[in-house]
Amino acid sequence: MRSKEIDANCIAILGAGNGGHAFAAYAKSKGYKVKIWNRSISVIDAIKKNGITSSGVLEGHFNTDLATPSIQKAIEESKLIMLVTTADAHKEIAVQIAPYLTNDQVVVLNPGRTGGAFEVSNTIKQHNGPFKPQVIEAQSLLFVSRCTKPSHVTIAGIKRRVPVSAFPSFYNEEAIPALKEVSSNFCETESVLNTSFDNIGAIFHPAPLLLNVARCEDPYVKYRHYIDGVSPSVACFLEKMDNERVAVAGAYGVHAISLKKWLNLVYGSTGENLFEIVQNTKEYQNVIAPSNLDVRYIFEDIPTGLVPISSFGEAAGVPTPHIDMIINLATSMCNKDYKSHGRTIESMELDKIPSYLLKEYVTLGDEFYIEIMNQESVLEE
Amino acid sequence: MRSKEIDANCIAILGAGNGGHAFAAYAKSKGYKVKIWNRSISVIDAIKKNGITSSGVLEGHFNTDLATPSIQKAIEESKLIMLVTTADAHKEIAVQIAPYLTNDQVVVLNPGRTGGAFEVSNTIKQHNGPFKPQVIEAQSLLFVSRCTKPSHVTIAGIKRRVPVSAFPSFYNEEAIPALKEVSSNFCETESVLNTSFDNIGAIFHPAPLLLNVARCEDPYVKYRHYIDGVSPSVACFLEKMDNERVAVAGAYGVHAISLKKWLNLVYGSTGENLFEIVQNTKEYQNVIAPSNLDVRYIFEDIPTGLVPISSFGEAAGVPTPHIDMIINLATSMCNKDYKSHGRTIESMELDKIPSYLLKEYVTLGDEFYIEIMNQESVLEE
Repeated sequence: MRSKEIDANCIAILGAGNGGHAFAAYAKSKGYKVKIWNRSISVIDAIKKNGITSSGVLEGHFNTDLATPSIQKAIEESKLIMLVTTADAHKEIAVQIAPYLTNDQVVVLNPGRTGGAFEVSNTIKQHNGPFKPQVIEAQSLLFVSRCTKPSHVTIAGIKRRVPVSAFPSFYNEEAIPALKEVSSNFCETESVLNTSFDNIGAIFHPAPLLLNVARCEDPYVKYRHYIDGVSPSVACFLEKMDNERVAVAGAYGVHAISLKKWLNLVYGSTGENLFEIVQNTKEYQNVIAPSNLDVRYIFEDIPTGLVPISSFGEAAGVPTPHIDMIINLATSMCNKDYKSHGRTIESMELDKIPSYLLKEYVTLGDEFYIEIMNQESVLEE
Repeated sequence: MRSKEIDANCIAILGAGNGGHAFAAYAKSKGYKVKIWNRSISVIDAIKKNGITSSGVLEGHFNTDLATPSIQKAIEESKLIMLVTTADAHKEIAVQIAPYLTNDQVVVLNPGRTGGAFEVSNTIKQHNGPFKPQVIEAQSLLFVSRCTKPSHVTIAGIKRRVPVSAFPSFYNEEAIPALKEVSSNFCETESVLNTSFDNIGAIFHPAPLLLNVARCEDPYVKYRHYIDGVSPSVACFLEKMDNERVAVAGAYGVHAISLKKWLNLVYGSTGENLFEIVQNTKEYQNVIAPSNLDVRYIFEDIPTGLVPISSFGEAAGVPTPHIDMIINLATSMCNKDYKSHGRTIESMELDKIPSYLLKEYVTLGDEFYIEIMNQESVLEE
């Protein structure tokens, strides 16, 4: 099963949604051998038959080298394995790829949301994967893209800077170069704690949706997620959530960017307060809100965003009452216990590590334990 | 100061809003001597100058016998003292009337919301009022009325049945007859626990507002509080809050009416679930939602509705997570600590009484302690 040699020029794309379509077209345009996998076979059939037609900043028609419902076939040979599904599916995919994965391959989470690298790395090890899997977490998707129907993608933009880090960061030197060859816009950051705590979507997606739930569910009303959905009181609430996120990051020695600074940095938006800054963001003017709660703003952002941030907070003694309120609201409205299904310190197997040592662990990985043991034996002498 | 004799035919109306205007016109139409007080003097001046013009189910022009900014002058002589302010003002008014109150007078809270009688009764005693003040709590306002401008009121309806009880219920026989003379639609219920736990507004007002906050604050959008504001998910949430309220009441031996049953009883509305029942309620079709959060749906219903229900729940070991979520949301969005400002078991001085004995205490009042002491001495023998 581990017979075929790894081909540095071969990329597996797991997930054929907005991001998967864009990655496949982009990688083909760069001359890579591209194999794409998707859970639903109708999408695979369409790509097999019609290839991928891309419009926007990348115009062209591209045929993938393989479109398959077999995850094993998709990943064999591939140097880079790009996970481009919603983050709530990461664990399940990690289970599926683990038996076929080798030490030479690099798994990239596009993006990992919060704690994706911990979850995927641990899951791979638990399911007979390599003992030291190379897992990279990207802070966001490289593309602003929309797959209007299978085989068709519009790439509205390519982000100029997507921070990435491997877990442990120790592997960055080995793992990241292959990714940077795909796009030099991927840039190395200190550790996956940075990519994890800079999860802006966790703040920006679920709360405005839940605080507009009746409008979201009204079949006769369309409204804009940011422009109509973020009123002065909602903006104040988001800032309180965001302060909690930044405080949690700070407790682990990580300087997370604030929502306001991020809006300024990414979109150049300015204003007296968060409400004004959101209203002044040109890119948000026509973003229509979802029309129900069964959307990734909830089923992805709660368990792989707010739940792990809250759990990191609890472990470090940083209270997150506003983040918890949104988790609880979603839990009640969707009748799903996100706290027990989501990523937590325990499920990410970080509960044995004191919070003040986590940064070191994330840098060193299992070498960390050797370091600690050495230090302890020094102390004992 | 306690010189003037009590006149059984004299009523003091404290508060000249929707309810105060209606009560004044109604009492005058019944031949009572009516004295009306209001905090803001402009309203008093208007009533002094123009009297009250009532339209709707009561048509006519009525001159009050006194319109005054002096609460002392308003209550002297009056057998019935009708509090018709928002419930969050009850405590302050109790402080003001306490020194002038006598044992012959009856204070009526129209309505008391949750725990009004406890709060007012204790406050009167603490501020040199009679040791055994007669305080009646009404479950709702007698009228469906709107004061369009000072001196003008439209009475759309008079409720057929308004449950009332004194605290302690022991006083019902003595206190309620005077009230029933004003309107036989006031009907005695078991105790103020019944009027307190049947606080439907606490469930129906704040949650739909907070879960539609961006729309509420949008100056360009008008929407209907119930018809647009209660979507399927909001209705599910309200039912969970309502189940908590009913469970808390049950823990004190009180059978509270459910929101669904109440809608059926009061409006004859039917449907498969709460969402449908609300949508089928004719009276709700045109109720426009408030346009900001500085409204009684928040500043009255949170501290005198949800906070005391939650506190009663905590004391009896009944969890109220959904009610607490709404308290916390309001606390965050309005930057006001409603939990410490609102009515609690402690502030109502009920914390010394075991929850299983509360019903007895509410019936007997201070006689309760004598009973308990007797029982204890029996046990000691």
